[in-house]
Amino acid sequence: MSIENPYYSHEFHGDYELISIGALELEEGGTIPDCRLAVATFGRLNEARDNAILITSWYSGTHQIWRDAYIGPEHALDPAKYFIVAIDQIGSGLSTSPHNADGANASIAMSKFPHVRIGDDVRAQERLLREHFGIERLQLVVGGSMGAQQTWEWAVRFPDKVLRAAPIAGTAQNTPHDYLIAEYCREGIMSDPGWNGGEYASNEDVFEGLKRQAHVWALVGFSSEFWKQEVWRALDFDSKEAFIEGFLEPYFTTMDPNDLLCQAWKWQRGDVARNTDGDLAAALGRITAKVFALPIDEDVLFPPRDVQPQQELVPDSECRVIQDVLGHLGLFAVADTYLPQVDRHLGELLATEV
Amino acid sequence: MSIENPYYSHEFHGDYELISIGALELEEGGTIPDCRLAVATFGRLNEARDNAILITSWYSGTHQIWRDAYIGPEHALDPAKYFIVAIDQIGSGLSTSPHNADGANASIAMSKFPHVRIGDDVRAQERLLREHFGIERLQLVVGGSMGAQQTWEWAVRFPDKVLRAAPIAGTAQNTPHDYLIAEYCREGIMSDPGWNGGEYASNEDVFEGLKRQAHVWALVGFSSEFWKQEVWRALDFDSKEAFIEGFLEPYFTTMDPNDLLCQAWKWQRGDVARNTDGDLAAALGRITAKVFALPIDEDVLFPPRDVQPQQELVPDSECRVIQDVLGHLGLFAVADTYLPQVDRHLGELLATEV
Repeated sequence: MSIENPYYSHEFHGDYELISIGALELEEGGTIPDCRLAVATFGRLNEARDNAILITSWYSGTHQIWRDAYIGPEHALDPAKYFIVAIDQIGSGLSTSPHNADGANASIAMSKFPHVRIGDDVRAQERLLREHFGIERLQLVVGGSMGAQQTWEWAVRFPDKVLRAAPIAGTAQNTPHDYLIAEYCREGIMSDPGWNGGEYASNEDVFEGLKRQAHVWALVGFSSEFWKQEVWRALDFDSKEAFIEGFLEPYFTTMDPNDLLCQAWKWQRGDVARNTDGDLAAALGRITAKVFALPIDEDVLFPPRDVQPQQELVPDSECRVIQDVLGHLGLFAVADTYLPQVDRHLGELLATEV
Repeated sequence: MSIENPYYSHEFHGDYELISIGALELEEGGTIPDCRLAVATFGRLNEARDNAILITSWYSGTHQIWRDAYIGPEHALDPAKYFIVAIDQIGSGLSTSPHNADGANASIAMSKFPHVRIGDDVRAQERLLREHFGIERLQLVVGGSMGAQQTWEWAVRFPDKVLRAAPIAGTAQNTPHDYLIAEYCREGIMSDPGWNGGEYASNEDVFEGLKRQAHVWALVGFSSEFWKQEVWRALDFDSKEAFIEGFLEPYFTTMDPNDLLCQAWKWQRGDVARNTDGDLAAALGRITAKVFALPIDEDVLFPPRDVQPQQELVPDSECRVIQDVLGHLGLFAVADTYLPQVDRHLGELLATEV
């Protein structure tokens, strides 16, 4: 049985549409009987249907941060020029997810939700864009973190449909360290007796577990320099403890535990080489999109030295390192200096003839 | 009431002597009525009593690793030349600690154990060396991690007694990121209902908590390259999971939860500037020892960029970076290339006229 969670609502996420793509067969087996994706669009699709940009979502995130920070007339992601489609991933809490699986999906609610892979999301998104919007080609696919995993997957899986790709702070093949980070996010949640094997009545039953999950992000989501330089002061907190209690913990404790677990499992296994029998070079070698890989210099999760060797396997690609002392969670676009870098790179990428 | 833990025994730690220094007043208030320190010595004290080297211990560690890996005729720490005294820190499980506080210490057993600071350890060690061995001057103080914290503290607090100091993989003033790492080690333990506010019957009651504590070390104790390059294969494991289950978890789950908490609290607050009203430059500026700071390049806990700015405040000092892909837990001297570097630096330091 699905449960209520007020966080996953228009009140907190503004305008979005739930679009069903019907049944989605999953790579790991099983089916989502009625796969509904939360979609927010910005700008207008032109008659040729060739001005679309796809934005994918990261762990715990939705289209909201993209709308609020990345999209606008002053940004490279300009709705006056492009039809921008942000699709929230399966398990995000807005799209079909463990906590909201009701109606036709009632059989996969909560602990019964099947394992979902990055490739499932990308296939679902492709179907939605094609069947709902008639979009066959994307000017750009862009996403951060798990959204970067989806971006890489798009470029490998649908080379004819992706003209440009900008994975920000994410790899095409997940690293073992990232796997462990996600594993201990999972452990934080699942070690709470209130999680109860995934059958709780409210996310509040798993408050302590969600808090422990938040603390993994305190350890690795930011750089050590973020803490040393007390960058959290810029966010109007008086101490690192106040920042953790006032930002990180509330951010995560409002969310659904099973939804986060669904995403974490998917994150752990992001790997485009699944398309080529484990051959990463072959997978990345078949990308025809122009790719700008945009790792963040202080990122502990997806550091440039993990991203760059993968980028170098892509024929038409560049690695452009974003400077941000926040590290991975620089993705929240907190630093004044962050978005100008992203805009410059995305602007140059979009200006490239392909 | 103290409890039994077979790990803290001669069977697992070889020869050591328990030496009482009597009552120890603590900086945070309170007293250890009968402070006993576990001491292992190597070599002979000469008649002038001026050939002594002090080794301090790290979080979760004892003299054992120093005896097995760092000390010997083929090493800079050569018992044929030096009288080497390894003293285990308060809370180490061998010296007076929460789990073994009995007899005169019964009033501070388990949850009643007082907070101990790095400065308390250093004062206790100084008293022991002076009163028990008649040692007034040390050729070298050396320790890793929390042992480095003690080494820095020795050099600041007893400048006349420390001729040379070699803090390995540790800072003189703890960083906020380190504070958080230790905090989530503590949370791992304390979130286990079996911990029971520090009043458990056996460390086995806190098995899950100790495991979660071990997982913090999986996240930050090694570098991401350690995991990517699968360096654990050199330790005869077949997978990272087998390494975690076969090495990290058993290493920590045999230990005493309260003892680890005592050490973690102390680690969080290591700060030589306490000697100079918070003025770090003043504290480090009064060091007269020749100091080689030896951070490890891939260390997440105490990276060179945290160590070097502190080292530069010491008049007669050098920063010599040790290369080790293992990161912080390179301290276990697993890599063939690790000890030759340590030996070279310690050898050159010991050869320096002071």
